[in-house]
Amino acid sequence: MRPVTGYAADALQEGLREIQFERRDLRPDDVAIRVTHVGVCHSDLHAVESLTAGGPPLVPGHEFVGQVVEVGEEVTRFRVGDAVAVGNIVDSCGRCDNCLAHRESYCREFPTLTYGGVDRHDGSPTQGAYSTEYVARDAFVYRLPADLDPAGVAPLMCAGVTTWAPIRRAGVGPGRSVGVVGLGGLGHLAVKFAVALGARVTVFTTSAAKAEAARALGASDVVVSTDAEAMAALGGRLDVVVDTASAAHDLSPHLRTLRLDGTLVVLGLPERYSVEPMALLGRSMTVSGSGGTTETQEMLDFCAEHGITADVEVLPLAEVNTALARLARNDVRWRFVLDVTA
Amino acid sequence: MRPVTGYAADALQEGLREIQFERRDLRPDDVAIRVTHVGVCHSDLHAVESLTAGGPPLVPGHEFVGQVVEVGEEVTRFRVGDAVAVGNIVDSCGRCDNCLAHRESYCREFPTLTYGGVDRHDGSPTQGAYSTEYVARDAFVYRLPADLDPAGVAPLMCAGVTTWAPIRRAGVGPGRSVGVVGLGGLGHLAVKFAVALGARVTVFTTSAAKAEAARALGASDVVVSTDAEAMAALGGRLDVVVDTASAAHDLSPHLRTLRLDGTLVVLGLPERYSVEPMALLGRSMTVSGSGGTTETQEMLDFCAEHGITADVEVLPLAEVNTALARLARNDVRWRFVLDVTA
Repeated sequence: MRPVTGYAADALQEGLREIQFERRDLRPDDVAIRVTHVGVCHSDLHAVESLTAGGPPLVPGHEFVGQVVEVGEEVTRFRVGDAVAVGNIVDSCGRCDNCLAHRESYCREFPTLTYGGVDRHDGSPTQGAYSTEYVARDAFVYRLPADLDPAGVAPLMCAGVTTWAPIRRAGVGPGRSVGVVGLGGLGHLAVKFAVALGARVTVFTTSAAKAEAARALGASDVVVSTDAEAMAALGGRLDVVVDTASAAHDLSPHLRTLRLDGTLVVLGLPERYSVEPMALLGRSMTVSGSGGTTETQEMLDFCAEHGITADVEVLPLAEVNTALARLARNDVRWRFVLDVTA
Repeated sequence: MRPVTGYAADALQEGLREIQFERRDLRPDDVAIRVTHVGVCHSDLHAVESLTAGGPPLVPGHEFVGQVVEVGEEVTRFRVGDAVAVGNIVDSCGRCDNCLAHRESYCREFPTLTYGGVDRHDGSPTQGAYSTEYVARDAFVYRLPADLDPAGVAPLMCAGVTTWAPIRRAGVGPGRSVGVVGLGGLGHLAVKFAVALGARVTVFTTSAAKAEAARALGASDVVVSTDAEAMAALGGRLDVVVDTASAAHDLSPHLRTLRLDGTLVVLGLPERYSVEPMALLGRSMTVSGSGGTTETQEMLDFCAEHGITADVEVLPLAEVNTALARLARNDVRWRFVLDVTA
């Protein structure tokens, strides 16, 4: 087994604390990665907050970059020293129709989550990348684009591909109008992607103070969602709206900004949806998970070509509790990344 | 003005009663139609039940066939004696993007409804086809296919195109699996269309007694929606589900029968939707209105080619109250049609 240092939460304590734990010895198709940077995702907060007493400590972190330090005997795609990146899933059944279509996040047997999941071979709980080393199947490890800042790539692996996949599926490109609800870790990347793809982007925000930042990211229009008049003026104009807002909210006003056959893509999973049926007439809504391996590679290639990374604030891993506390009050532009080597 | 006899409802009486009223004199692009058969739609029931005191009497009826008895001076598509059919809209702005795409039911200025609407030229209330004559713009009048039973065509004009449009949009054809929720006026036509298009059809019903009828219509499978085990066995298998059930119900179990990227098409408009977010993950839902002029003509051509009509029970117009009362308790297979000439 491989000794690792990480930061873990359990239900009985305030904040995360440093722990020592072990990673598995490499299987033939495994890659061991020395983690250098790991993004702080909103779902890390949810995972920590929903821990129940009696369970083992949980190490979060599912968007990270690092260097390969060892490879299993069957691994041919990577060598020691390669710079790599990993996202929020690290395995899947590999046999179902969705896996065969490389949309492994929709694996019919459920994919193996990077943390908070269960390894499908040895049944052990998976622990995340708020830690010095990670071991993953090579098929779920990606080469880090050479010219991009590694810290800014880490959030691409979850926040990035989660917005990239539905934006591509919706055929976003020149001549299309895209709305992005919420400007945060996911939203700011959705804006960058849609702008780089040539679309006209409208940002919906509840905070007028974010208007300038939205325009700096390339948005053409900024609308405060609570401004009923401005929302009505947008009625029936957008081709797709990507809703990245994590708090529960009424989806109907954003649905009404869609033209006929337009799609609202919801990226959050609230307990229930509030939708007026008439707002869905001639429009559709979908809940989108993360992307699969093909979409993730496509996104990384696109980011390399267009020089796109997340806008991040980097803190040392030891300051993880500061990062989580500030994220909880949305005090970050736009993603915290923890430097594990600091 | 043109004297007409019809059956009307108002808020203060039980049931519909015979009234005399007038249709407009023909405009240059108008067609006057002697109504022979008119379908009894569930929305007729809703319209009658939601009348408020003080309003004028309402003549329902928005899926009908008949003969042309007079044409306006600019009408070239029809001549006196032609057998024709009309659906649930009779006019639209003609200038917006949706009208220009011949999807007039989504007209941005709202289409003119066949009854219960307001004529966009003279501001008069529109009255429906539970009556001896109707006057409509020629662009919203269709030629009756020669070899089809006129009584069975009447329901195609609303129930038919309302299911046809989303089935076609979803690309239903050979190799595709289609679910139909609810076997009634809309549902039985959805089954006929999907079967004729070459798809495999599963009927969801709350009434096991309808299983034999569903198979007789061509369905391969019948599932009682309340049978949780049978529903679970269908999980992730269907490409599209068309929900024709008018009563409010949880959409989640039907969403779960859809494969990745599958679509639930809801044809009813309840007050609100009950949907579990996880059931929408990787799937979409849409609310579909009726079809436009291109889709309606396409459906009529398809029905002519495949010999498809609605399965109807014909009653004389004077028995309209019997038809509505029996429809209210779902005592019809599958659509009442009123014979206006009887």
